Amino acid sequence: MKALVKRAPERGLTLTEVPEPTIRDDEVLIRVRRAGVCGTDVHIYEWDAWASARCKPPFICGHEFAGDVVQVGALVDSVAVGARVTAEGHIVDEHSLFSRTGNAHVDPATRIIGVDRDGCFAEYIAMPASNIWPLDDAVSFDIGGIHDPMGNAFHTALTADIPGAVVLITGCGPIGAFAVGICKAAGAAHIIATDVNPTRLALARRMGANDAVHPDAARDAVMAASGGHGADVVLEMSGVPSAVHQAFALARPAGRVNMLGIPAKTIDVDFASEIIFKGLTIYGVVGRRMYDTWHQMSRFLRAGHFDPTPVITHRLPLEAVDEAMHLIKSGEAGKIIFEIA
Amino acid sequence: MKALVKRAPERGLTLTEVPEPTIRDDEVLIRVRRAGVCGTDVHIYEWDAWASARCKPPFICGHEFAGDVVQVGALVDSVAVGARVTAEGHIVDEHSLFSRTGNAHVDPATRIIGVDRDGCFAEYIAMPASNIWPLDDAVSFDIGGIHDPMGNAFHTALTADIPGAVVLITGCGPIGAFAVGICKAAGAAHIIATDVNPTRLALARRMGANDAVHPDAARDAVMAASGGHGADVVLEMSGVPSAVHQAFALARPAGRVNMLGIPAKTIDVDFASEIIFKGLTIYGVVGRRMYDTWHQMSRFLRAGHFDPTPVITHRLPLEAVDEAMHLIKSGEAGKIIFEIA
Amino acid sequence: MKALVKRAPERGLTLTEVPEPTIRDDEVLIRVRRAGVCGTDVHIYEWDAWASARCKPPFICGHEFAGDVVQVGALVDSVAVGARVTAEGHIVDEHSLFSRTGNAHVDPATRIIGVDRDGCFAEYIAMPASNIWPLDDAVSFDIGGIHDPMGNAFHTALTADIPGAVVLITGCGPIGAFAVGICKAAGAAHIIATDVNPTRLALARRMGANDAVHPDAARDAVMAASGGHGADVVLEMSGVPSAVHQAFALARPAGRVNMLGIPAKTIDVDFASEIIFKGLTIYGVVGRRMYDTWHQMSRFLRAGHFDPTPVITHRLPLEAVDEAMHLIKSGEAGKIIFEIA
Amino acid sequence: MKALVKRAPERGLTLTEVPEPTIRDDEVLIRVRRAGVCGTDVHIYEWDAWASARCKPPFICGHEFAGDVVQVGALVDSVAVGARVTAEGHIVDEHSLFSRTGNAHVDPATRIIGVDRDGCFAEYIAMPASNIWPLDDAVSFDIGGIHDPMGNAFHTALTADIPGAVVLITGCGPIGAFAVGICKAAGAAHIIATDVNPTRLALARRMGANDAVHPDAARDAVMAASGGHGADVVLEMSGVPSAVHQAFALARPAGRVNMLGIPAKTIDVDFASEIIFKGLTIYGVVGRRMYDTWHQMSRFLRAGHFDPTPVITHRLPLEAVDEAMHLIKSGEAGKIIFEIA
Repeated sequence: MKALVKRAPERGLTLTEVPEPTIRDDEVLIRVRRAGVCGTDVHIYEWDAWASARCKPPFICGHEFAGDVVQVGALVDSVAVGARVTAEGHIVDEHSLFSRTGNAHVDPATRIIGVDRDGCFAEYIAMPASNIWPLDDAVSFDIGGIHDPMGNAFHTALTADIPGAVVLITGCGPIGAFAVGICKAAGAAHIIATDVNPTRLALARRMGANDAVHPDAARDAVMAASGGHGADVVLEMSGVPSAVHQAFALARPAGRVNMLGIPAKTIDVDFASEIIFKGLTIYGVVGRRMYDTWHQMSRFLRAGHFDPTPVITHRLPLEAVDEAMHLIKSGEAGKIIFEIA
Repeated sequence: MKALVKRAPERGLTLTEVPEPTIRDDEVLIRVRRAGVCGTDVHIYEWDAWASARCKPPFICGHEFAGDVVQVGALVDSVAVGARVTAEGHIVDEHSLFSRTGNAHVDPATRIIGVDRDGCFAEYIAMPASNIWPLDDAVSFDIGGIHDPMGNAFHTALTADIPGAVVLITGCGPIGAFAVGICKAAGAAHIIATDVNPTRLALARRMGANDAVHPDAARDAVMAASGGHGADVVLEMSGVPSAVHQAFALARPAGRVNMLGIPAKTIDVDFASEIIFKGLTIYGVVGRRMYDTWHQMSRFLRAGHFDPTPVITHRLPLEAVDEAMHLIKSGEAGKIIFEIA
Repeated sequence: MKALVKRAPERGLTLTEVPEPTIRDDEVLIRVRRAGVCGTDVHIYEWDAWASARCKPPFICGHEFAGDVVQVGALVDSVAVGARVTAEGHIVDEHSLFSRTGNAHVDPATRIIGVDRDGCFAEYIAMPASNIWPLDDAVSFDIGGIHDPMGNAFHTALTADIPGAVVLITGCGPIGAFAVGICKAAGAAHIIATDVNPTRLALARRMGANDAVHPDAARDAVMAASGGHGADVVLEMSGVPSAVHQAFALARPAGRVNMLGIPAKTIDVDFASEIIFKGLTIYGVVGRRMYDTWHQMSRFLRAGHFDPTPVITHRLPLEAVDEAMHLIKSGEAGKIIFEIA
Repeated sequence: MKALVKRAPERGLTLTEVPEPTIRDDEVLIRVRRAGVCGTDVHIYEWDAWASARCKPPFICGHEFAGDVVQVGALVDSVAVGARVTAEGHIVDEHSLFSRTGNAHVDPATRIIGVDRDGCFAEYIAMPASNIWPLDDAVSFDIGGIHDPMGNAFHTALTADIPGAVVLITGCGPIGAFAVGICKAAGAAHIIATDVNPTRLALARRMGANDAVHPDAARDAVMAASGGHGADVVLEMSGVPSAVHQAFALARPAGRVNMLGIPAKTIDVDFASEIIFKGLTIYGVVGRRMYDTWHQMSRFLRAGHFDPTPVITHRLPLEAVDEAMHLIKSGEAGKIIFEIA
């Protein structure tokens, strides 16, 4: 089958023929229809410090996808051939203490598809049956293919108390844009989204932001919306140091800051004034809660309150991998998906 | 001044002249503009068993209102003459243990205006400054005058986790209708509202219910919306025994039932099958959380996500008290408000 | 092997020889060392209305046990031969929506060992690997054999906020007695335990109750301990109607009542005065949270803060089944365990 | 009366005669019996950067105290002359939005006694009646005089889920030592306390720490107690940068870090590896929750589970202010209290 493979510890991804995967008795084989391209894939493509420390070539890249089940293992009775599905890409031991106590998403033994083992930028992928999430008939493969990053946004937004809240979202990449739409649907009183990129601000506006502004204008917007108290909830989606400081500064006393964006370097923080004396709660977001987040996401999509479609800006074939990577780095793309089958 | 007074332990309310109230140093005097009529007022009007056991005539009836401040006590600095306000009608000692630990709403020593002391069906009312809640300029006195029952609905709805939930609301009187609108704004995935009264079902539909049906059709609607699991959240707004049983029956395992409707009599409950084996959580709703609920309510109104106006069906002068009581008992009215000044 | 079998739809259990169970690839075979006898077993022994409606003879009775693993299926890597273990007796589909969203304990498709399929009053039992819970070396098979009912007590106690709370525990059977010890270890400010049985009150005192009294003395004890406000937390462990009413009556306003005792019949409840106007939260307890409760239980045992040993009053062979059932019905026994191997 | 006054913007505190305070109608006058000395007082004594930026001499220093009420204002009915009391030293507007929504402790308009207005290192202090907290007869003035810092410890400990938890407490000054005792009483499974000071480690051991070790030995102790997963809860009580890093490093994935210690400078944090990828929750602790924390504290003291007495190491007269400051800076003191009357 065709697959985008990281063949060696060097820059780039190679489209090549590889054997179709075989499945264990507790796995299923899925024909991949759509696969989302993520910033993580860019790190692997570029073979930066993080990627070279973590990944062991050769492997197939990609961890966001949807498709249909073409084969199921002998022990699998939770999903059948023909089912339209997506999947949680974090593979964990279902019997680990973390899994058994509701914390599978942070199990240190997690192996991620497309990072620690073969991924989904391919015609087929083998997945444990326990990671499969069924798609409603009304959910397209396009939307199914971006459940992973949408799930990040749901996890980040809905672990805060959104109805009636003034929400600041710092960073309007695809996940930030999803978060705007989720908070809108969940009854946020006022959503302020920030980014330095006008294209992304326009997307945030389309997804429902009351204010979509340059970070320099964030303070005024937050204070106007909150009677001068600050944002009840901040969703930090950028990983940019100045945005992290602003997240702390513009959260109201006793507010909550959920952090998903990954800072590339250390940040010098004045815990006294930025966090402690404000009585903030800070929450580090990892992946998706398994599987509460997925259930919430399916419910939002089914209700039709939330349409992620505007976030998808490009549909490309696997052959266009270089273009996809370039587009993401340019900041001009929303979500890019590979159309595979 | 003019006031509707319960003069003696007998049926009826009398419009009569009474002295204007005087205020203590920690109180404010408010000119009442609008006052909502509540089922509790009907109990007092009819002088039923509950009313005759609880109330001590003579007193001015009425506990839902909005108006403007015309005088403030010497110690009051939290509100000024001219302010447009509504008020929490539950008067509690701010220094009681319940008040100090976030449970003022259930303090057994609570005294309710219009029930335990003079109320708001009058041209003026004296209130402790600590009970005053300011109104945004954009909020009309009509809407200000129904903050008390809207607050019941906010308390009932938002102490459950609404975003993405399948919600069953049993009973579509004014508070049930408010709750429909609140759950809609807060991102409920699907709202099923029940009542036996077609007028109320039409109101529920207008407020945003996905299904507004006779109780006989509730099971099918809930199961269709929830994949056969049951409602994540039930808001019991009727107090009718069959609705209470249905609330328990149609909540999903590990679901939540928030009970606001007041059953007139005891109900024979099979705790084993109805509550315990289902792992339900049941929450008894009293008044409004002081003052978290009020803050949430102001935020929802300010955001414009929720318009309670359709629930107000009649505007009457104090002189029409008999008509108002008749309308409420008929079940054909939504919310009735007295226009006083 | 030897087993206590419900052979036909009639009273009694028969000690007889049956074939050793075989295991599937995802199961393990356990040599049973100790098995606890539960009220549920009495219902099955007596073949009462509940049992005859639910159970389908023939089957091996018993659902509380500990033992050592003697064989593991080909797919099992979470537990090895020789491991000392106990197990969750509620068998659920790990991939059901309830399991995937933290609510396995209330999955309607649950099948219980010794009730819906073969149980543990036998020399060997086959269990899904996913239900196995390892025992610390320091935990005896005696204590391992009663993890199931101790888990009920942990679930009931620790889903309330115990540190600093005034706790009323209504019913001092084995699970109530465990709950006394758990609340003591978890920093309850004052524990009032009630029962009509002096033997059980003595056990509650031994487990750490500050007051262990007849229900007639409960009000005075609760009010003295709580400054007249009522119990912050009530754990209802009896299922007796008068105790259920007392649980509601003696909970403080905005208090919490966790209900584990199973009333045999309906109870006539005045929701208005008993629950709603008090702002109570009521929680129906089913089994053990899978597997948060088990993890908490292991931590408490490991810390040595909690010693359940005094609750075990009788150790009998399987041959003494009639005596065991008689003892439980007499109310004079704490926990009875079968010594099997 | 005698008082320790910061007379001018310079180092030191001066014992001098000042007029007795007068009270407003909503205030009470208290004869101070005992007053605790806090690190904050040292900052003011030393007149460091923080103190000189915040405080406006002249003012009486001190914010932790207990005494008896000698006069009450005309409007005060919540406390009477003769009552033995302590008080919350954070003075907030009871009608501010923060106060009304359960967040009085972080109200930015808070004024602290002994910092922003006259404090308690004096024979008398005037306090708003709403800040008074009554003392049980069994609670000595010594213990009453340290309710403020004990309250910090209760706030820090009991906003985490302590029963059954492995708890790491970094820093064993007086508040850290209190926290050890609180966690012990609340059923922590295992408490590891760290400090570089052997005297403080000995105190932590006496208060109930399972391990009291140098920070270099913390990792091994935490991992041994937690099966290699890390601490469920970390209470950061030192403000030392290396301890803050260790707090994050030794918390288990999805664990909680409550931060009370105030770092003097910024700290360079790798949010990706230290916080986000671990899924941590971090909570900044300010003062005491008003008044939930006070109620919990009274309950713990009343139950007798927790004895803070060993933390008090020195009792001195106001005249010994220089010695008190020296002792605190030396690190050899636990809690020092002034005996005033």
